[in-house]
Amino acid sequence: MTGFLLAGVQFEPVLGDPAANAEASGHWVREAARRGARLVVLPEASSAGYMFADRAEALRYAESVPGGPVYSAWAALAAELDLWIVAGITELAGERLYNSAVLIGPHGHLGTYRKAHLWNAEQEVYDRQQDGFPVFDTPLGRIGIGICYDAWFPETFRSAALRGADLLALPSNWVPVPGQPADAPTMANLMCMTGAHSNQFYVAGISRTGVERGQPFIGSSLIVGPSGWPLAGPAGGDGQELVLAEVDLIGSRAERHGNPFNQPLADRRPELYETGVPDVPR
Amino acid sequence: MTGFLLAGVQFEPVLGDPAANAEASGHWVREAARRGARLVVLPEASSAGYMFADRAEALRYAESVPGGPVYSAWAALAAELDLWIVAGITELAGERLYNSAVLIGPHGHLGTYRKAHLWNAEQEVYDRQQDGFPVFDTPLGRIGIGICYDAWFPETFRSAALRGADLLALPSNWVPVPGQPADAPTMANLMCMTGAHSNQFYVAGISRTGVERGQPFIGSSLIVGPSGWPLAGPAGGDGQELVLAEVDLIGSRAERHGNPFNQPLADRRPELYETGVPDVPR
Repeated sequence: MTGFLLAGVQFEPVLGDPAANAEASGHWVREAARRGARLVVLPEASSAGYMFADRAEALRYAESVPGGPVYSAWAALAAELDLWIVAGITELAGERLYNSAVLIGPHGHLGTYRKAHLWNAEQEVYDRQQDGFPVFDTPLGRIGIGICYDAWFPETFRSAALRGADLLALPSNWVPVPGQPADAPTMANLMCMTGAHSNQFYVAGISRTGVERGQPFIGSSLIVGPSGWPLAGPAGGDGQELVLAEVDLIGSRAERHGNPFNQPLADRRPELYETGVPDVPR
Repeated sequence: MTGFLLAGVQFEPVLGDPAANAEASGHWVREAARRGARLVVLPEASSAGYMFADRAEALRYAESVPGGPVYSAWAALAAELDLWIVAGITELAGERLYNSAVLIGPHGHLGTYRKAHLWNAEQEVYDRQQDGFPVFDTPLGRIGIGICYDAWFPETFRSAALRGADLLALPSNWVPVPGQPADAPTMANLMCMTGAHSNQFYVAGISRTGVERGQPFIGSSLIVGPSGWPLAGPAGGDGQELVLAEVDLIGSRAERHGNPFNQPLADRRPELYETGVPDVPR
């Protein structure tokens, strides 16, 4: 039996209050565990919030991985509750500052992913990672990670899939997108759905709600199955809630990669693809 | 004034009857011209239908480009009506057989795209192209082309965008996808929408209706704007119809590539991406 319950925690981290965020996220992780979850995904920037005015402010709340206070609270929970956590964290590594996500298991730190695509003013706050898209092997399956704007780049999903990911966990702080029709699904949700479908793997896009310094967040967290359709969610745009879905990362491999309808990894033509710098007319 | 009316023709090509297809597609191209269209996109395999039993049968209806009978009918129309046509064609090139799409202008042949990703039994019918994803410069803008299953590979959209396409024309014969919920948009439509959004260009996914040898086609043709939302369609799943949208391939360049919200081409991290052969656990 390789199936398990995957939980996403859509909550409201508080800017500049790591202790409050450890407490609030801990409440939700305990609730997910009570419901039977083995893997819990938290939003981007769950340790200290998102809307830092500048690098100096972010540095005040950044922490080391492993070892920092919110990291350590999550690691203690993972050990106590015998589960895995993926969570967005403001990471200090020497003098470098990253918008990161950690993967923690019952026995501690399993890996850190640092956001590859820095969105907007993030480019003035965080350092750019040079690590690519690592995939982490766990007893639940192989977990790749992206963060929010990374999902706007199909290369994120594809890179993780090509490295054998069964799931892309996508801690996010989704914001309103210009041009989004009121009655349509959010574009962020569509990116998760097509990312899952075109790679035949699971995607957990877990976002936050609330407002920070005038920036609203849109929730809409969802868990997508390998066919591209939501298994849970999208959650609402306002409230705090869990999204919960039964998944089977390992047990679905044969069916996913032997899909008679399409084989989106095996049918690729990498020798034909443009991958470099754009040649865009202005 | 660089804007113009783009038309997609959702019709029902007949298997093995090029003369009937030249006639029927001609009717729709004339109707599109009457409505004011300058660029008309026809479905995949518009010259001779799709569900060939084998390569030998497809070879009976394949034609040379330029020069073949259906090609020549379209070229005559483009000249007479002073417009551009993108249309799926069963192409014979020497001894090689391709599932292709031609781009024809008022003055004749502008380019041929051969389907890169062969779906299912197509692999036993057609040859595999080695040309990649050419982009063709026209007075209307730069036009890239994909065909149907190519849209399951985000590399198709990206390759065309990196070569400076303003529009990806996607002649298609979309079929029902397993797992598609009855009340949700078709996955093919979502691939077009996220392909447009993550490349900030136009996508015209033009499909067919009807049934060939037991294979139903689902129509659902649409024209998507650079924000990722449909400008026209999706059309119905049964009927024959035009989808029509005002577009501005050239005049939108500055805004598309300078989008303050995201710059999906400029923000890429090509040095971090996996592009090769999958390392997939079984």
